Amino acid sequence: MTHHGETHVIDASQVPRFAGVPTFMRLPLASSAEGYDVVFTGIPYDGGTTNRSGARHGPREMRNASSMMRQVNANGIAPYQSLNVADIGDCPVNPFNVTECLDMITAHYAAIAAAGAVPITAGGDHLVSLPILRGLAAERPVGLIHFDSHTDTGDAYFGKNRYTHGTPFRRAVEEGLIDSSRTLQIGLRGSLYSPTDYDFAREAGFRLILMDEAVDLGPDGIIRAIRERVGDGPVYVSFDIDCLDPSVAPGTGTPEAGGFLMREAQKMVRGLNGLDIIGADVVEVSPPFDVGGITSLAGATMMFELLCAVAAGEKA
Amino acid sequence: MTHHGETHVIDASQVPRFAGVPTFMRLPLASSAEGYDVVFTGIPYDGGTTNRSGARHGPREMRNASSMMRQVNANGIAPYQSLNVADIGDCPVNPFNVTECLDMITAHYAAIAAAGAVPITAGGDHLVSLPILRGLAAERPVGLIHFDSHTDTGDAYFGKNRYTHGTPFRRAVEEGLIDSSRTLQIGLRGSLYSPTDYDFAREAGFRLILMDEAVDLGPDGIIRAIRERVGDGPVYVSFDIDCLDPSVAPGTGTPEAGGFLMREAQKMVRGLNGLDIIGADVVEVSPPFDVGGITSLAGATMMFELLCAVAAGEKA
Amino acid sequence: MTHHGETHVIDASQVPRFAGVPTFMRLPLASSAEGYDVVFTGIPYDGGTTNRSGARHGPREMRNASSMMRQVNANGIAPYQSLNVADIGDCPVNPFNVTECLDMITAHYAAIAAAGAVPITAGGDHLVSLPILRGLAAERPVGLIHFDSHTDTGDAYFGKNRYTHGTPFRRAVEEGLIDSSRTLQIGLRGSLYSPTDYDFAREAGFRLILMDEAVDLGPDGIIRAIRERVGDGPVYVSFDIDCLDPSVAPGTGTPEAGGFLMREAQKMVRGLNGLDIIGADVVEVSPPFDVGGITSLAGATMMFELLCAVAAGEKA
Amino acid sequence: MTHHGETHVIDASQVPRFAGVPTFMRLPLASSAEGYDVVFTGIPYDGGTTNRSGARHGPREMRNASSMMRQVNANGIAPYQSLNVADIGDCPVNPFNVTECLDMITAHYAAIAAAGAVPITAGGDHLVSLPILRGLAAERPVGLIHFDSHTDTGDAYFGKNRYTHGTPFRRAVEEGLIDSSRTLQIGLRGSLYSPTDYDFAREAGFRLILMDEAVDLGPDGIIRAIRERVGDGPVYVSFDIDCLDPSVAPGTGTPEAGGFLMREAQKMVRGLNGLDIIGADVVEVSPPFDVGGITSLAGATMMFELLCAVAAGEKA
Amino acid sequence: MTHHGETHVIDASQVPRFAGVPTFMRLPLASSAEGYDVVFTGIPYDGGTTNRSGARHGPREMRNASSMMRQVNANGIAPYQSLNVADIGDCPVNPFNVTECLDMITAHYAAIAAAGAVPITAGGDHLVSLPILRGLAAERPVGLIHFDSHTDTGDAYFGKNRYTHGTPFRRAVEEGLIDSSRTLQIGLRGSLYSPTDYDFAREAGFRLILMDEAVDLGPDGIIRAIRERVGDGPVYVSFDIDCLDPSVAPGTGTPEAGGFLMREAQKMVRGLNGLDIIGADVVEVSPPFDVGGITSLAGATMMFELLCAVAAGEKA
Amino acid sequence: MTHHGETHVIDASQVPRFAGVPTFMRLPLASSAEGYDVVFTGIPYDGGTTNRSGARHGPREMRNASSMMRQVNANGIAPYQSLNVADIGDCPVNPFNVTECLDMITAHYAAIAAAGAVPITAGGDHLVSLPILRGLAAERPVGLIHFDSHTDTGDAYFGKNRYTHGTPFRRAVEEGLIDSSRTLQIGLRGSLYSPTDYDFAREAGFRLILMDEAVDLGPDGIIRAIRERVGDGPVYVSFDIDCLDPSVAPGTGTPEAGGFLMREAQKMVRGLNGLDIIGADVVEVSPPFDVGGITSLAGATMMFELLCAVAAGEKA
Repeated sequence: MTHHGETHVIDASQVPRFAGVPTFMRLPLASSAEGYDVVFTGIPYDGGTTNRSGARHGPREMRNASSMMRQVNANGIAPYQSLNVADIGDCPVNPFNVTECLDMITAHYAAIAAAGAVPITAGGDHLVSLPILRGLAAERPVGLIHFDSHTDTGDAYFGKNRYTHGTPFRRAVEEGLIDSSRTLQIGLRGSLYSPTDYDFAREAGFRLILMDEAVDLGPDGIIRAIRERVGDGPVYVSFDIDCLDPSVAPGTGTPEAGGFLMREAQKMVRGLNGLDIIGADVVEVSPPFDVGGITSLAGATMMFELLCAVAAGEKA
Repeated sequence: MTHHGETHVIDASQVPRFAGVPTFMRLPLASSAEGYDVVFTGIPYDGGTTNRSGARHGPREMRNASSMMRQVNANGIAPYQSLNVADIGDCPVNPFNVTECLDMITAHYAAIAAAGAVPITAGGDHLVSLPILRGLAAERPVGLIHFDSHTDTGDAYFGKNRYTHGTPFRRAVEEGLIDSSRTLQIGLRGSLYSPTDYDFAREAGFRLILMDEAVDLGPDGIIRAIRERVGDGPVYVSFDIDCLDPSVAPGTGTPEAGGFLMREAQKMVRGLNGLDIIGADVVEVSPPFDVGGITSLAGATMMFELLCAVAAGEKA
Repeated sequence: MTHHGETHVIDASQVPRFAGVPTFMRLPLASSAEGYDVVFTGIPYDGGTTNRSGARHGPREMRNASSMMRQVNANGIAPYQSLNVADIGDCPVNPFNVTECLDMITAHYAAIAAAGAVPITAGGDHLVSLPILRGLAAERPVGLIHFDSHTDTGDAYFGKNRYTHGTPFRRAVEEGLIDSSRTLQIGLRGSLYSPTDYDFAREAGFRLILMDEAVDLGPDGIIRAIRERVGDGPVYVSFDIDCLDPSVAPGTGTPEAGGFLMREAQKMVRGLNGLDIIGADVVEVSPPFDVGGITSLAGATMMFELLCAVAAGEKA
Repeated sequence: MTHHGETHVIDASQVPRFAGVPTFMRLPLASSAEGYDVVFTGIPYDGGTTNRSGARHGPREMRNASSMMRQVNANGIAPYQSLNVADIGDCPVNPFNVTECLDMITAHYAAIAAAGAVPITAGGDHLVSLPILRGLAAERPVGLIHFDSHTDTGDAYFGKNRYTHGTPFRRAVEEGLIDSSRTLQIGLRGSLYSPTDYDFAREAGFRLILMDEAVDLGPDGIIRAIRERVGDGPVYVSFDIDCLDPSVAPGTGTPEAGGFLMREAQKMVRGLNGLDIIGADVVEVSPPFDVGGITSLAGATMMFELLCAVAAGEKA
Repeated sequence: MTHHGETHVIDASQVPRFAGVPTFMRLPLASSAEGYDVVFTGIPYDGGTTNRSGARHGPREMRNASSMMRQVNANGIAPYQSLNVADIGDCPVNPFNVTECLDMITAHYAAIAAAGAVPITAGGDHLVSLPILRGLAAERPVGLIHFDSHTDTGDAYFGKNRYTHGTPFRRAVEEGLIDSSRTLQIGLRGSLYSPTDYDFAREAGFRLILMDEAVDLGPDGIIRAIRERVGDGPVYVSFDIDCLDPSVAPGTGTPEAGGFLMREAQKMVRGLNGLDIIGADVVEVSPPFDVGGITSLAGATMMFELLCAVAAGEKA
Repeated sequence: MTHHGETHVIDASQVPRFAGVPTFMRLPLASSAEGYDVVFTGIPYDGGTTNRSGARHGPREMRNASSMMRQVNANGIAPYQSLNVADIGDCPVNPFNVTECLDMITAHYAAIAAAGAVPITAGGDHLVSLPILRGLAAERPVGLIHFDSHTDTGDAYFGKNRYTHGTPFRRAVEEGLIDSSRTLQIGLRGSLYSPTDYDFAREAGFRLILMDEAVDLGPDGIIRAIRERVGDGPVYVSFDIDCLDPSVAPGTGTPEAGGFLMREAQKMVRGLNGLDIIGADVVEVSPPFDVGGITSLAGATMMFELLCAVAAGEKA
């Protein structure tokens, strides 16, 4: 444990990357968010998964891969120069009780919000975004920038189960956590259960950018669409790793052919610089299905880029 | 679907093993157990897993591997000559509702029992043995031959969760499904949460054969211990793949160093010939953690040997 | 087995994807093509492979991966609403006798054609396209849309062996099965045995789109080139998985650097909507060389997109 | 190429094992067997495989793994001190023509025999043992020490195909190449197509040591059985890697649960010291199904032990 | 960081194993050995490796796997009840300067010894045992119980390089760090560079137990041999993971066929109970060559068993 | 060994690719560069690696993969028609002594230069480019075309270690081996240790093309930038495989998200036709981290394209 507020990243040119207990980005491990501007944390929960589970192992393997990150991104943003940042460990979870688990996660994020820190989360499956939003957006709905191959706005699975990784954003709308008029879903492309699958999101007023349109717009066009829509207000960023192509991110529960390249994803997130990001997550990294650790590395890289986007916002 | 009661195994010397939709042992796919002596079925459920999940994929991959089985085992038992056998597909499950799922499984096995068939099951995690026993042993407790590195007689995990893959046999004792005096647990060796972990099983009256004793007894000694204890009454056989050494069965959720070799496991199961086996399962095969398919192959092989043991009993 | 003509796809929001015996797209398993508009079938044969074999395992693993497909593609095409579709199992093969095997395949497809169904095939190596065409195009040559990194118009390998996965389309020309003036080969790029390797295809009158040109044209330009060339007549689509980049489809026998991305492949196949497709195949998926199942998933995805293209044609 | 008769193994304490083009045991690459006492050679052919192919890649990967071998075995035998040894490259093969290929192999071994060298072969599937014996035993039948989980004495597969990896030793008996009274098959255990599968071998007069008996005898007992049976006459040793347990040798086409450990296999082969070994092979190593290269390493290790057994015989 | 002297292992029945930053055995992370009875530490160094490197990643992956360990071993030893134990992180290393690195390691262990703690180390390649011994045995030579397939008593590699993973115990003898008369090497079996490879160890007076003898003695016989030889004096235990069979521990730099099973290794180490163990290491775990994490799990398991052996000694 | 000056590539349509000892491109293995126009050679050295090692295995696995190359590239260049080419085996190395090793490499390349041959090298880590340049550019500085995600112009690592894979091009500038005004670095994108990381390269006068600019320029724009800068003078090409995206080349020590696709890399190298290339390397292929061999295949493919670029230059 470190004294709160201290930021010291281990320098890989002095201490090799393979050394030591892996915290996110080789940051100090703190016991709470108090005193920090940004905190990394994990939610090792995949109880909302409808098909291939394993995202419970995501935080550990993204921590492991994050040792590859250095201190300045390719655009020259040096987040540790302007921000106090720490790894505050994993959120407590209960693998067997979704209701209790949602409450545990909500409490964890409410405490982070109360401390005034911006959380960047490693999931876990996509259900975790719901209790994160409950913790962060309790007082007013926030904008949502959602990268995914699925809308995750289903109603229920396998009967009446309403809390799954296919349903968080319908719940978030219903609970008034997100502002639909300031919400985008980017990279949609998975095959559908029925022709009406997109109806909820469309009727709610989301801006849907299907993959074909995303390719036509290119990263620059998507950035413009995002900035135009979310404006200056508070915004949450949710990055489902399955927005990437399965060749880039095979280690995920519901891979969908035809997704983004990493350089596109990086460019899009770098385009968020200056927005009022109140939190962000990288979810659905499932290490048991990964090959060569490339998905965990992609996830850790996106977490670092999200930190840089937050840092850029701080400067702005 | 076939007409009930028909048994026809595809001959791999005529149709290559890699051809066709994989059913268990390349048997016909039937819609119910009616008319069959033995049925293979799967339970794609791992909602009771405390650590590494993935056993939900067990039935599918054990079916795939089971194409390697031919028609006569190495001891000369030719089960299809004396038994009508089919694959009846998977038991319906609900990944998100353990209570409902336990009931679905119980009903599936009650129907098999009502049809007079002996079920051989591919799990799923070890929790599934509880509802199987509810379905098969509703009228009287049965003996239990349990191969495992853990007793699975815990009380609750992560709070008050009493239905997990670490607790089925405590529940089975409490519910009067198994006859403790005719129960053995073979291969126990995992490290323990506390020095009292074995107390429940011992106080219940189980015969515990820890791994050290198992090595000293050898397969022949273990067979003697089993036969002496279970006698002529009805007995259920539960084979947790983690009784095998992790080098033999890496694809499992809770591997424990120092387990059985396959040739020992095969010999032990062949030693059950002539017992009154009312059902059997092979559980905890977790394909996402497997390497080279060897765990699925081990699981499929044990399913075939269990069929041969049942067939030998029929003859007796 | 189902009654012929019945189409019922299992809904993954009700029955988990990992459950059950895997048929193509979780469709009913039928015993023949009678009564169906489109049938999926496999040819587990790789006896024509000159280097790394394994495509014999393609049908089984593409079936497994195809559980990931839902019922409507990203363009809104819902094939099961307009078409009766089934999995009719695998074509019989003889791994040791190429002549006999070619005849078995021809007969299988002649029967499908006689039933009036459109077959979508999972290979097998590329040699299988020859007997498929013999079965489907016996009465008149058809157009060919061929995605591949190789022309597969060699004459003979290892002496006088004329029936290999490097030679099917030379044979098809010689046998009058394809109309060269309505034939395109798209994505060619593999290094060549000699500077004359493309001569046969060029002299036959094929339209060759080498990879450099393919990148310049983009999917839209390629679609235009295809539609212009094949027109309204009957056309067969052959999709060799090695047209994709090895990062996207590592599990193939002859990977060639520098290929298509999946989103490009999907867009190109979606551009075939409205053509008179008489059959299609996805070949050269070799599971033993795959990593993380991404090649099988790519193959299953292309099979679904081909079905949607056929369905779009039906509507037109 | 080296001058014939020269033996120089690269010393891994001077030149790292990972350096250089991999020949068997880092021996010189010679153009023929002339002048050598023992030659290593490969047969990259798996056209006789009934299920999972890939043994065509066996010679290359066993060469690669063989760099791990040093110059003296654990029993103190230093083969290069008494024998001139070389790698003579691979036997020419035709993947598409079994008849021609058998002739090519026969000629390759006849030339080795004519040069007076003992060949140690890396297969290839088990069919290759037949033409090897045709080349080496043309003048008189030889004894056979055969380690395998299958007898490989089937008659025909998939119709009338008589030359497969399941039939070589029936053919060898029929052609008078092996002396049944001096033949043993050790480690048999695979499930059978029919109860009569062992009849041919038994009627021919082979000594069959099924796995259960093998475990009871132990390596020492098996060595005694071997030596008693084969006596002083010429003997061929065929080591099918699937005699090992699938945990030890997963990379093979037809793995069978319950096999030998490597230390047992090593001890058995070391027990052959002093026999008149005229040739030996290690077959059925299938690298595409291997994990972590352990099967190739096991194969290369057995090749080195076979060399030591030959060297011990030279001394005797 | 914890207050020194505090021991609290996270209970996997309350907090799932996959949660949190992985320290050894989920112990507190301390900044020094002060106040602890036993400390776990890592040495991420493999600069002494002659062939396949990667042991630099050993500490991290053994920490990861060690979450599978609970609190009591199968023999009922509960180390945390009698000992204060912590993870003190990794020893500083310099990957590019062996001399400096040896000094860094020596200092790390001298500090541990000065604190009165017993270190259990995760390597790193086997060279690390030399500076560990320099740190722990500076004042008097200690006995050595060395499990390995190699003696590691070479003199120099690739010229005059005397500090490699093949030479530590020759250096240790030369430097007076180990008492040859109280030293055993157990499991030796690798092929040799020359017939004289064992001469140094034999002449120094080590007791060599080659694998053949080890199998004959069995774990009980080996325990007797160890206890007889090392007596009551201080002893260091060095466990090279390559003493295990490659099927059990594929993830190592120099695998040698024919090694120990894990249950044998566990029994041997449990037989050390009551000895005066001053330190222990598990070395040569090379994660890049591992499959399915089984080697890291084996390593973590041995570290836990070594802790239990130390705890048993404390009690004695 | 062949007579010097002989070029004969094995034709994969006559001899299968999986057959024989793998030399680069199936070329003859020569004992020196005398008489050849171009030689392939390997440097199995990774002692300069700061993080994940394994590039020592690069030459062997790139040789293995290079059997997939045929004789003419997709642009119609047939290098063996105009050039005498051979594989001259690996450069001698000393894994434990960087100074000595650098000298050994320098001497190897000085000899190649003296023979008048152009070397195409398989690394090894990137440090090897320094002694290659010492051997080739001793008399005058050369232009450098450097594809990489890192500048490799650091000063020292882990203290004062100046010879690492992160520092070769700073040393090359200091030693006058490269002409900064004719040097480009293409694909830079890795996160940085500090905001000043690019200062050395910029101050030296290199042209830096960061990834964002590279995507904007496209391969054609990059080719123009290269040709404009290097002109007609002698130029060395260094291709670090980590310039490719981690999905394309996972098997490398320092993967960086967001890199080139292979088709872009191929097009860029084909754009070098006609330049005065005095040598080229493909470095940082690390087989232990590869999946499915795709990185080795990418490396071998780039080596073949580099040969074609040299051949095109010869013609010009």
